[in-house]
Amino acid sequence: MSIVHAWVVPGASQPMVRREVDLGPIGAEEVEVQVEHCGLCHSDLSIWADDWGMSQFPAVLGHEAIGKVVAVGPVAKGVKVGDRVGVGWYAGSCMHCRQCLSGDQHLCAEAQATIVGHRGAFASRVRSHWAWAVPIPEGLPAAEAGPLLCGGITVFSPLAMHARPTDRVGIVGLGGLGHMAVKFAAAYGCDVTAFTSSEHKFDEARGFGARHVVASRDSAAIGKLARSLDMLIVTVNVPLDWNALLGTLAPNGRMHVVGVVPEPIPVPAMSLIGPQASVSGSPTGSPVGIETMLEFAARHGVAPTTEHMPMSQINDAFARLQAGKARYRIVLDADF
Amino acid sequence: MSIVHAWVVPGASQPMVRREVDLGPIGAEEVEVQVEHCGLCHSDLSIWADDWGMSQFPAVLGHEAIGKVVAVGPVAKGVKVGDRVGVGWYAGSCMHCRQCLSGDQHLCAEAQATIVGHRGAFASRVRSHWAWAVPIPEGLPAAEAGPLLCGGITVFSPLAMHARPTDRVGIVGLGGLGHMAVKFAAAYGCDVTAFTSSEHKFDEARGFGARHVVASRDSAAIGKLARSLDMLIVTVNVPLDWNALLGTLAPNGRMHVVGVVPEPIPVPAMSLIGPQASVSGSPTGSPVGIETMLEFAARHGVAPTTEHMPMSQINDAFARLQAGKARYRIVLDADF
Repeated sequence: MSIVHAWVVPGASQPMVRREVDLGPIGAEEVEVQVEHCGLCHSDLSIWADDWGMSQFPAVLGHEAIGKVVAVGPVAKGVKVGDRVGVGWYAGSCMHCRQCLSGDQHLCAEAQATIVGHRGAFASRVRSHWAWAVPIPEGLPAAEAGPLLCGGITVFSPLAMHARPTDRVGIVGLGGLGHMAVKFAAAYGCDVTAFTSSEHKFDEARGFGARHVVASRDSAAIGKLARSLDMLIVTVNVPLDWNALLGTLAPNGRMHVVGVVPEPIPVPAMSLIGPQASVSGSPTGSPVGIETMLEFAARHGVAPTTEHMPMSQINDAFARLQAGKARYRIVLDADF
Repeated sequence: MSIVHAWVVPGASQPMVRREVDLGPIGAEEVEVQVEHCGLCHSDLSIWADDWGMSQFPAVLGHEAIGKVVAVGPVAKGVKVGDRVGVGWYAGSCMHCRQCLSGDQHLCAEAQATIVGHRGAFASRVRSHWAWAVPIPEGLPAAEAGPLLCGGITVFSPLAMHARPTDRVGIVGLGGLGHMAVKFAAAYGCDVTAFTSSEHKFDEARGFGARHVVASRDSAAIGKLARSLDMLIVTVNVPLDWNALLGTLAPNGRMHVVGVVPEPIPVPAMSLIGPQASVSGSPTGSPVGIETMLEFAARHGVAPTTEHMPMSQINDAFARLQAGKARYRIVLDADF
């Protein structure tokens, strides 16, 4: 089982080519998953282009995988051959550090990214540590669940950590992450305000569950929200009018960043001190966090809005995402 | 009782002069306090120099007052003539907004600063809303308690909100606020690291309860603390090596700012996302927060380290604070 078909990136920003790749013998704690579907996340694009200077080529991308377990290492626990599972941004963690033992495996200093120094899921099969192969609950459509494994948990985790159903929550950006954030925040019971730069997305934002929609470049409209939002989740990775956004926070409010904004965010001390506010961030979530999110999504009928393409059109899919045309998450269906 | 003696600032940065001031009739919900002692806080200096553009002259400064209630308005509650109380940064709040009714009176949008548009406590008597005249517990030395009313609650509140006794807490700055922060964090049971730019304060920092002391300009020493601190409380108002400080935060760590740093703090998104960290701030505390702190201080023998001067030497006292010579908090004893 060690030879798999994979879409390989030979070097930064180069088109992917289909190759056979030898994964070697399965690790004692690993599971191997036959990929059925895999979401295309913006961070695949960042690693493809080596935007973060951490890529390792040749690379196999893809880290929002859904599939069935086809092999398990001799000491793997918790999942068995035939289980449908998902694999997200991380494919492993040390399992013995303070964070891993505390249930914060996603904060492990040695956590293994699925697509950096490890072969990802734009392939016929992908491997992960057993703990990071999270069971997909009955009732969640498997073909749509992939984007929950990275984008979904990234926006659900801030809600799970910090939001209450009585909160007024703003979601900044209405892309792959943001549209799931609006759906999750609405299902969470919150009063949701969507901020988007695309006026043609206003109606869709309401369809996703936003009660209010604001143009993210309309400083006057943002000004009207002064001191009104308990939480802002920033899903974009472009500079924003940070002062205006911080000004929307209610007393005890929080701006939570999940988009990798390239420039440091300038935070005036008084914008924190005055309203007793916080600015925070988080990376994806733990295996239990992911499982909790999948159960919540199944129970509330939350799923990403997707476009399906066959995996053999992977280069077209990357171009479409890069052009900002994805509505809202591309899922590649394995067709090896 | 409406005529009081007061030290009046005629205009920005001008020497204070002793004057008689008419406070007018006492408000229905007000109490009047005969000032015995009043701490001199760095924010008195900021309002005196109009550093924040919010000063109103002529001004009477002083907002860390201890004294006895000598009069109460007809509907004042909770305190009576003869009670020893303290009055801090706020002398009132609306008492009917969401924040006031939730116990976050210090976040009231109409909270009345004691020394802006209101006569402060470098005077024979000061007034406040009854709720903001907080009883001083038996066992707390009244002559030393003044600085707790603003500086003390400012650094105690972050601990009360966010710290646990098992935490490793860094205190940045060892001035009026910082030295109280070290004492409170040690009494709270935390493992305390003090950061100071003054090497001659190292031994004193240990005397206040710090187990570790680091030179705040020694980037190599700060680097050794990488990913180790659960909480950093920043008490200074000067620019720092923010990247180095953020790098000391452990997973789930928090940097909490109480000093009014003039320039926006540049916060890289990845320094929040990677360790699931927060940057936050807070202003003083509520009446119940102050009362809780005073009880904790009395129980643990926490008091500021002070220098006493007669209030008639107020201009010398301001000069001494401005020159950075206060060790660690100046208290002015009323001598009208």
